[in-house]
Amino acid sequence: MSSGGQRNWPRRVRALQDRRTRQSEGVVFVEGIRHVIDAVDAGLHVEAILVDPSRLRSARAWEMLDAAGQQGVEIVQLSPDDFARLSNRDNPVGLAATVHWRLEDLRFIDADPAGVYLATDNVRDPGNLGTIIRAADALGATALIVHKGTDPGHPTALRASLGSAFRLPIHTVETLNELFYWAQSNGVAVYGTSARAEAELPDAPLNVPAVLLLGNEGDGLAEETRDLCDGLLRIPMGGAASSLNVAVAAGILLYELQRRLSPSAGD
Amino acid sequence: MSSGGQRNWPRRVRALQDRRTRQSEGVVFVEGIRHVIDAVDAGLHVEAILVDPSRLRSARAWEMLDAAGQQGVEIVQLSPDDFARLSNRDNPVGLAATVHWRLEDLRFIDADPAGVYLATDNVRDPGNLGTIIRAADALGATALIVHKGTDPGHPTALRASLGSAFRLPIHTVETLNELFYWAQSNGVAVYGTSARAEAELPDAPLNVPAVLLLGNEGDGLAEETRDLCDGLLRIPMGGAASSLNVAVAAGILLYELQRRLSPSAGD
Repeated sequence: MSSGGQRNWPRRVRALQDRRTRQSEGVVFVEGIRHVIDAVDAGLHVEAILVDPSRLRSARAWEMLDAAGQQGVEIVQLSPDDFARLSNRDNPVGLAATVHWRLEDLRFIDADPAGVYLATDNVRDPGNLGTIIRAADALGATALIVHKGTDPGHPTALRASLGSAFRLPIHTVETLNELFYWAQSNGVAVYGTSARAEAELPDAPLNVPAVLLLGNEGDGLAEETRDLCDGLLRIPMGGAASSLNVAVAAGILLYELQRRLSPSAGD
Repeated sequence: MSSGGQRNWPRRVRALQDRRTRQSEGVVFVEGIRHVIDAVDAGLHVEAILVDPSRLRSARAWEMLDAAGQQGVEIVQLSPDDFARLSNRDNPVGLAATVHWRLEDLRFIDADPAGVYLATDNVRDPGNLGTIIRAADALGATALIVHKGTDPGHPTALRASLGSAFRLPIHTVETLNELFYWAQSNGVAVYGTSARAEAELPDAPLNVPAVLLLGNEGDGLAEETRDLCDGLLRIPMGGAASSLNVAVAAGILLYELQRRLSPSAGD
């Protein structure tokens, strides 16, 4: 274990709070025992694991550090003060890491002919985006496609994803035109979601390969985006004031699509 | 509009941050234009609407204040400093209220013979509980039953519910035994959720009237609770590390139950 003297790690971590730094370097900051172990288990290239031995009590974490050290991962020992300075937590557990993690540009991805893609347009809350990533991973989505909005590498999004951000492929598009062009070129249908759609689940037509496109928390999909979709879906809901959190809507859409694809579908 | 001089409103609102005060008085604090209008529209008995005229710019809010004042609601004008002191927000909009809102004890409720009840066991995060309340309202649950965990009257839960907390009946139980006793006395089946359940949706048996019982974020339902259930359900998921946010799971369960109850079920 090296001492932290060579590099100013609190400053390094502070720089990674900035989205532009994360994206230009392709590096994110993760904190906490479960999250660091998730990143290591996912096989990500770890820049450094940051440890405050005075705080770290977990035997499992120490075993992971031992194994990572033997594989040549840089493990940096920090003073309690330095660790407190870089931590985002009220009660730091003494384990964090900076890891290489970069979103792939959708234009360079070949579509899976049986693919179930979830896409988000301008989702703003990092907790919501992380919960969407977790749901997409758990419910068997092929990949998530992110357009605008908050950054999947935001510490809150990574935390809410509970490690799924490191397991699920995540692609980005600069514009929705890129998404529609990719879908058309690859024979993938794009289904938008709208509270005003005529086609109501569970009966609405829905086939794979598919992109399920979700609008943002406040406004949903813009009218010109809805016009470009191959189909529009509505989740059946109660009164006029009713609406669903975007991550809950994502979960229901993926559940419904997987239900249709399951061997017992049509019962 | 009365001036705020007679009562120390910042102190009153601070007292309502405490769960015991909220519960013993049956009064909660809501803040923001949409949330105050939701409470008024839901027909709740408003203790007082708190206004900082220097901040409040919404014509819709002023119309509501006019109508509420004519109906005899107490409207209190506060100084910018006093309003900032009671606000939970970085950028207060100048509108808040204290409203009477009390959860009903489940023991005094007759079950709806076609009821779809959602129940939570020790859900800890107020944002999750508010998102569950919103989903239960939107997806046609008869009521929510809350056992332990965070308080539905927590400001974060109320905010995340987007007004649904004032529309959906919410009942409480002191112990899970009360819930199971109520269900048995009323002929309501209790379905627990468990990642280890044998019965996987969408094929698992599930009939109304029903309680869909969700465990908490970390541990799910305790084994002795699962043993008491009439059935256990599992949402189909991918890898071993997969899991769903509790509000996403609630949305999927309610969607699935409503799908079965819909006229076209069996397609």
